[in-house]
Amino acid sequence: MTHILALCGGVGGAKLAHGLSACLSPEQLCILTNTGDDFVHLGLHISPDIDSVAYALAGLSDPVRGWGRRDESWQFMAALGQLGGEDWFNLGDRDLATHVLRTQYIAGGDTLTKATQRLTCAMGIAHNIVPMTDDAVRTQLLTKDGWLDFQDYFVREQCQPTVADIRFQGAQQASVNPLALDFKDNGASVAVLIMPSNPLLSIDPILALSDINNLLTGRRVIAISPLIGEGAIKGPTAKLMRELGLPCNALGIAMHYQTRIDTLIIDEKDTALRTDIEALGIEVQCANILMRNETERAQLAQYCLSILSS
Amino acid sequence: MTHILALCGGVGGAKLAHGLSACLSPEQLCILTNTGDDFVHLGLHISPDIDSVAYALAGLSDPVRGWGRRDESWQFMAALGQLGGEDWFNLGDRDLATHVLRTQYIAGGDTLTKATQRLTCAMGIAHNIVPMTDDAVRTQLLTKDGWLDFQDYFVREQCQPTVADIRFQGAQQASVNPLALDFKDNGASVAVLIMPSNPLLSIDPILALSDINNLLTGRRVIAISPLIGEGAIKGPTAKLMRELGLPCNALGIAMHYQTRIDTLIIDEKDTALRTDIEALGIEVQCANILMRNETERAQLAQYCLSILSS
Repeated sequence: MTHILALCGGVGGAKLAHGLSACLSPEQLCILTNTGDDFVHLGLHISPDIDSVAYALAGLSDPVRGWGRRDESWQFMAALGQLGGEDWFNLGDRDLATHVLRTQYIAGGDTLTKATQRLTCAMGIAHNIVPMTDDAVRTQLLTKDGWLDFQDYFVREQCQPTVADIRFQGAQQASVNPLALDFKDNGASVAVLIMPSNPLLSIDPILALSDINNLLTGRRVIAISPLIGEGAIKGPTAKLMRELGLPCNALGIAMHYQTRIDTLIIDEKDTALRTDIEALGIEVQCANILMRNETERAQLAQYCLSILSS
Repeated sequence: MTHILALCGGVGGAKLAHGLSACLSPEQLCILTNTGDDFVHLGLHISPDIDSVAYALAGLSDPVRGWGRRDESWQFMAALGQLGGEDWFNLGDRDLATHVLRTQYIAGGDTLTKATQRLTCAMGIAHNIVPMTDDAVRTQLLTKDGWLDFQDYFVREQCQPTVADIRFQGAQQASVNPLALDFKDNGASVAVLIMPSNPLLSIDPILALSDINNLLTGRRVIAISPLIGEGAIKGPTAKLMRELGLPCNALGIAMHYQTRIDTLIIDEKDTALRTDIEALGIEVQCANILMRNETERAQLAQYCLSILSS
């Protein structure tokens, strides 16, 4: 059985990671997760993508908002606002426990990897959610006001500014997490899945790591499109692709990943793009990629695995 | 009009401080508050007595529990416990905003004094709540298991261990807050009120500061008993006094403060102790000291002021 190394961002990636965790044993899956969105806010170390994946796998994520915990309350935020604290980044009362503990663990000497292991273990997650690196990488976006940190763009500015460029500060000095480099099976092959996350904001930080080729070279790499038609399932992917001059559909995804991937899984609604994508030298597979519920998450995961075993 | 420098602990002190704030202008009152109970928990700087006083003055304190904020919720604690975090010290969701901001301010370079000013200002408090010192002082209690930090004794162990001794680590190297040393009126005198807080745990840390005599010498000092009959209005005062060999009543309070105070205000129910207390060279005044509601807080405050002006 093939082992899966998943390159993963937040919402869409978290859903498919959840599906994969239902199909694969902990030994068969390594979820290498973007940390370019991480930041320190109110003195707390916040790792949005790691938390999205962890909450999804633990069955704790909010199905409507798409981020944070379900059954969440907001008393901390209300009090914070009344006290004049920075309240542009929403932290739910339950979610806050994750950030406080992570911060405590890191202050006590844990790496982000170790802190993540402690938290996911406490959530009852058997599968490995692995930060892409323990080095500091910070995603920044160039707007007319200069370079913005990711959360300033994404949350504070609600993705409104037009983006001219994106960079990943520190990535060239950062190393892929050794747990991912060491993830291999004696005998079986390891395939890489690029999850249906924002390619520009969630996957590119991972691909920008200094030694990422050690992870990819010689392996089959399959990406799942985060777009259906001309829209992102969630988030600013489509808007960003337009602003950076890419076709705003699965073809644009293929062009973006062109040198990196062997196969692109696109939605059944996008079969008309097959020929153009294949012309780039990329194999195309079609599936329902929307993942409206847990069943569809597992179905898409099974579909990815079936491609690998065919 | 006399200015009041109040030496203040948590619950009982906070109630009278609230009463005083209703009777005196901000210029007339300095509430010098115990920080011996302060500790860092989950990476957060927690100042229990400062918060009790602030919440009381802002009308935010919980009237039933006697600590923390009213209309509080506990989702953070529930999630913290599920994640395996230390959950023996209760932090309400709203209360947490205070600790997170204080920690952020101090990490950013603020003194505890400055952080307290920012927080109390945001709460709409005009009066000055002044930490007894910006130096680190830690109250510890000697039990059969050795020296316990205050919160370990008070909260984790629920005051159950028998106490053989109490010490205030760092007090002899700590200086009284300059805001309190500088608190004086051009012309009018400053009187010192020792609030009805636990003398052994809340007031003694203040009295142990290296230069406390600069604050007390030449000033009239009036204490208000925290005991009625043989019981504390709240907390472990009575149990501690017994364990440390003091009479467990207002006479014990008088004996404890004997060299420090001119006047002791005791409850009307304790008038039988008057002669014994006066034999120590201390003037006795009797009042209703229970403070069951805001009216009684203001009444006791007015009574204290009337003694000073008589």
